[in-house]
This record gives sequence, structure tokens and C-alpha cells, in this order.
Amino acid sequence: MNALGRHILAEIYGCDPAILDDSELIKKIMVDSALAAGAEIREVAFHKFSPQGVSGVVVISESHLTIHTWPELGYAAVDVFTCGDRINPWDACNYLTEKFKAKHITATEVKRGLFDQPVSVKVSNL
Amino acid sequence: MNALGRHILAEIYGCDPAILDDSELIKKIMVDSALAAGAEIREVAFHKFSPQGVSGVVVISESHLTIHTWPELGYAAVDVFTCGDRINPWDACNYLTEKFKAKHITATEVKRGLFDQPVSVKVSNL
Repeated sequence: MNALGRHILAEIYGCDPAILDDSELIKKIMVDSALAAGAEIREVAFHKFSPQGVSGVVVISESHLTIHTWPELGYAAVDVFTCGDRINPWDACNYLTEKFKAKHITATEVKRGLFDQPVSVKVSNL
Repeated sequence: MNALGRHILAEIYGCDPAILDDSELIKKIMVDSALAAGAEIREVAFHKFSPQGVSGVVVISESHLTIHTWPELGYAAVDVFTCGDRINPWDACNYLTEKFKAKHITATEVKRGLFDQPVSVKVSNL
């Protein structure tokens, strides 16, 4: 089977709570992690919750990164979904895990878009 | 174990290609699917690719929905991630699958944020 994409679901525990509650910093880390992997940024949308927590997404040409944080638990749920062979989602995942000062991470890679025949990916942009 | 969230990874095949290439329509279907599940919309960001394909995200108070479409393959990769017990991610997933006129879907639910003790969710907004 041929897959269109690779999707990492990362459970990131033991992070610095102050980092996880800083919306601007989280946004920067997520964007930088995408760039570190060589992705092209298309859209960025983040939301700060009260009393705490941040949710956000970085849409990239190659698919997306998302994050939801629970500072009170030191926990972040991160997804890194990339299409094509040009970039490696683990590069972004490893980058942000380091920046969050995580103590423990469990991550699973899931193949997305399975086809019998080889398939192409979106390659150009508006 | 107690989970913070439920995350559906849906592989949606045999969709109407015209729908999958219509960015505004995709956005409306994704937002409506979130509303159909009872979610609160926080951020919406979509991107149209050339020559075809749409990527987008709906950030909700309860986490997010994302989509990436390949009209040429009739395929859409959809994620519906919800936290808490108030809404059911399958309500959104079933809604959008119907709207895309999908012929075949494979979907997996993954638990996110596992803790030994019961855990709370983000409940309020800025």
C-alpha cells in the first residue's frame, strides 16, 4: 500500500507549565518546529484559554501541526501531519519536544491516505 | 486510565471531487459539522491549493477539526479531536462524511492525554 501522508500523534508529558501557558511562545515554537522540518507555512491560528491552556494550528503546504496544552498537567497533545517525502514529521516533533522541556513523550506514527497504486501529493500553492 | 480527549482519524474515500475542491464549501461543511456536534468555534483557517486540494482547520473550545483533500483521488483526511464529555466527535465525523457523499470511510478513535487520576478539561474562554 502507498500512503499519502505520515501523521505523528504525540503525547508530551512533564513539560514546563509556564511555557505551555504562553500563547505567543507556543505559536513561535510550533512555527519554528515546522520551519525546522523544512515545511512551508500557510496559515497560523492560535487561541488562549482562561484560566489556562493554549490551542493552535499551523497549516503547512505539507498538511498541518496542531497543539493543545494543559499547563496545570504539564501536558501537551501535539499532531504533526506531513505529506510527501520532502520533509520528515519527526524533525518537527523532536524540535518542539525539546523546547517544551518535556520529561516524557509517547508518540505514534499513523499512515494516512492508503492506496493500492502510487499516489502523488499537492505540490504547488496559490 | 483517564483520557482528556477523543481523537478520530478518518480516511474518507470516494467523495465528490467537486466538493473536495471547493474551499468555501469545505469550510462551511467543517464549521457546520463542528456546530452539529455542539462545539464552540474559536478559529477557522483554510487554504486552497493549486491546481487542486484544500487544507483547513477549525479550532474549537473542545480541541480541533482538520481536513486535507485530494479531489483527484476523491479522498479526504479528516481529524476530529474533542475534549471532555460534552460533545461526541462522531457526530461531527458522521455529518461531514454525509456531506462529502463518501462511498467508503475507515476511522479510528484514539484516546489522548492519559492519566492515572481523573483529569479536568478546559472549560472557559477568553
